[in-house]
Amino acid sequence: MTIEKRSIREIEINKGIDLGTVTLSEQEIIDYALANDPLEFHTNKKAAEQSIFKGLVASGSQLFNILHKRGWIPMFGHTVLCGLEVNHWKFLRPTYVNQQITGVVIPIFIKENPEKHTIVVTWKYEFRDEQKELVQTMEVTVMHKN
Amino acid sequence: MTIEKRSIREIEINKGIDLGTVTLSEQEIIDYALANDPLEFHTNKKAAEQSIFKGLVASGSQLFNILHKRGWIPMFGHTVLCGLEVNHWKFLRPTYVNQQITGVVIPIFIKENPEKHTIVVTWKYEFRDEQKELVQTMEVTVMHKN
Repeated sequence: MTIEKRSIREIEINKGIDLGTVTLSEQEIIDYALANDPLEFHTNKKAAEQSIFKGLVASGSQLFNILHKRGWIPMFGHTVLCGLEVNHWKFLRPTYVNQQITGVVIPIFIKENPEKHTIVVTWKYEFRDEQKELVQTMEVTVMHKN
Repeated sequence: MTIEKRSIREIEINKGIDLGTVTLSEQEIIDYALANDPLEFHTNKKAAEQSIFKGLVASGSQLFNILHKRGWIPMFGHTVLCGLEVNHWKFLRPTYVNQQITGVVIPIFIKENPEKHTIVVTWKYEFRDEQKELVQTMEVTVMHKN
């Protein structure tokens, strides 16, 4: 699927934008964790079975990174001046191998600076499992060119 | 340098722990960004020179991931039950190629649950440049086994 670039002026407060669906294989989970977050329950199936998760789970940041990269950046990456902050990133449920996770991003704060030709947006990400239960939420504040 | 495992019972409120120093090469910055955060000012030197940064800068999360992986996980990774949340992750200054960044992590909240044999800790990370200026701060809340 090709995702088209979108103008930052198109976004509307509280109007969610679909980021698509992702499933992570055992190998993808292990490779990401070895590179970035090598905790045993992300890298070792046997150890993960002994953990509170009772099975291999993805590093929390992998879910964001992949939906951000595949869903959000193709739409809005060309408008980014810089990232400002991340808040309220909650790891509510684990993500298991081959579990289908769907992402939505909602602009919950939009502030234009007409003099500087910039727009600051707080994007609320919501990731849900197949039962529509929240797996993660987070708020990312970004300065965009306008 | 080998970093020794530490007991979670050794930590003290507001007492910082050194995470060491990191410098990122141009290729490390580009490789990480292509995998996780492919914005032009992280992946393309020419485009980065035209950006507000006037040069290639690392993805914000790369700095955390690398100091977390090299500094924090060898000490405390074996005690982690699960991550809970991330707050106040502020991208205060960019990180350029070969810039030397030093990390410290400070337990700013410690709560034991003796019945469940768990300890919840909020770890405040501070990353500083060679001039001791803050580059990033963030707070990560983790549930540990006790």
